[in-house]
Amino acid sequence: MPDIVRVSLSIEKPLFDRLEKMVAESDYGNRSEFVRDLIRDHLVEQEWESDKVLLGTISLVYDHHARGLSGRLTHQQHHFAGKVLATTHVHMDEHLCAEMIMVRGKGKDIRALANRLQREKGVLHAKLATGTLGHSLR
Amino acid sequence: MPDIVRVSLSIEKPLFDRLEKMVAESDYGNRSEFVRDLIRDHLVEQEWESDKVLLGTISLVYDHHARGLSGRLTHQQHHFAGKVLATTHVHMDEHLCAEMIMVRGKGKDIRALANRLQREKGVLHAKLATGTLGHSLR
Amino acid sequence: MPDIVRVSLSIEKPLFDRLEKMVAESDYGNRSEFVRDLIRDHLVEQEWESDKVLLGTISLVYDHHARGLSGRLTHQQHHFAGKVLATTHVHMDEHLCAEMIMVRGKGKDIRALANRLQREKGVLHAKLATGTLGHSLR
Amino acid sequence: MPDIVRVSLSIEKPLFDRLEKMVAESDYGNRSEFVRDLIRDHLVEQEWESDKVLLGTISLVYDHHARGLSGRLTHQQHHFAGKVLATTHVHMDEHLCAEMIMVRGKGKDIRALANRLQREKGVLHAKLATGTLGHSLR
Repeated sequence: MPDIVRVSLSIEKPLFDRLEKMVAESDYGNRSEFVRDLIRDHLVEQEWESDKVLLGTISLVYDHHARGLSGRLTHQQHHFAGKVLATTHVHMDEHLCAEMIMVRGKGKDIRALANRLQREKGVLHAKLATGTLGHSLR
Repeated sequence: MPDIVRVSLSIEKPLFDRLEKMVAESDYGNRSEFVRDLIRDHLVEQEWESDKVLLGTISLVYDHHARGLSGRLTHQQHHFAGKVLATTHVHMDEHLCAEMIMVRGKGKDIRALANRLQREKGVLHAKLATGTLGHSLR
Repeated sequence: MPDIVRVSLSIEKPLFDRLEKMVAESDYGNRSEFVRDLIRDHLVEQEWESDKVLLGTISLVYDHHARGLSGRLTHQQHHFAGKVLATTHVHMDEHLCAEMIMVRGKGKDIRALANRLQREKGVLHAKLATGTLGHSLR
Repeated sequence: MPDIVRVSLSIEKPLFDRLEKMVAESDYGNRSEFVRDLIRDHLVEQEWESDKVLLGTISLVYDHHARGLSGRLTHQQHHFAGKVLATTHVHMDEHLCAEMIMVRGKGKDIRALANRLQREKGVLHAKLATGTLGHSLR
């Protein structure tokens, strides 16, 4: 486990009261963890504007009856060989499939893959969750 | 000026180091102000999911040659009489006008006004900035 | 395959030219698919403001050395029994795990689960991708 | 007024039905204007990832009792001389001021100004609305 540092901040009393209320309503165990999560979110946002290697998850919904779609989706992912860490497939109904794809790479490459998957005919929706390898968060 | 409270947080050493680096690179005067801004942003996001009275700014770009548009835009704003605090108009070029409209009201009413303005024929773009009356931030 | 409808739209010539340029640069096969994706994205955004049953993917990064975390994460997901469709786990390095969790449920329930997972001690980052069951997209 | 082009698109029948429903519920006068706004929004998003000159509106809420704040805000804006098109000030209550600032410039410069204004002590909230000069939208 990493060392823990005690940090002291000055906060205006009314803002402090609001912070305490948010922490209480959020069921966070304590104020430190709440503020740490705000800092971490901000760090991850900054990472996605940088050139760093990151972790993203692409979620797709597609119609598996679309001709050749499955092969085309696999083909696109193979351009990212070594970067696609895991793909999980769920059969939603007779027609539709949902897939979530975990990708490690630079932000612009992950976005490019998400765009390429979205524009395949038969893909109804694609959405990228911008995550992190976590190196900067510990 | 409001009272100032000293708050002590525990942060893992590596996360603390990253925080210090962000503060330094950001030119914020100090760490407290940086963290306070993270808390304030989070509070304002929460306000926009509540039923509170808020402050929003709607920015429009439109073609003032569109027939009757100016009258229609004014008409829509009058449905919000007492809520539109200020409107500023800038002549961009021979055709286009930019306008920014400060509105006080509930989040859903401000969004409704932004949508109504956007769908007027001749309005090329509308964008809402979600702000705050600031009561919760001091 | 669903029936195809031909829809005719009127677009100002300069906007049309820009659309053609975007389609060409995007490698979309054709203009129709490009515009259909804009419509679909808008539909999914609207779904997330409604009370409908949706599909979301939550991505987590966490430190598996955090005491009892694995059990707590499983416990939280079991409150959503029958709604968590699939969970995929990837070992990132000696300390960190990445997990993606596909969830079917109402938007507010999926968001609540994402929040509950994020606030567990040891979870460094959580991010929700707002997807769709696809019923409205075909 | 620009020339109007008739564009024909093919859309799956169920997606077309959903589009018609959205248009009807939105009070947009017609389907063409609805789709044009989707295209325009997408264009403006792309502009903000480019190096083009754009239009943004920064909204601030601040405490005018903060020592020297008014001068510091003016000072920051003067670094953008010729780019700040208009500033409108509203007195919210005894303490708080709201200000909206229309800025013409490159996306990264407008973002830099918004950040600089936000980090001034006494500024409680700053929010940027990403707009457009409109050249690409007609």
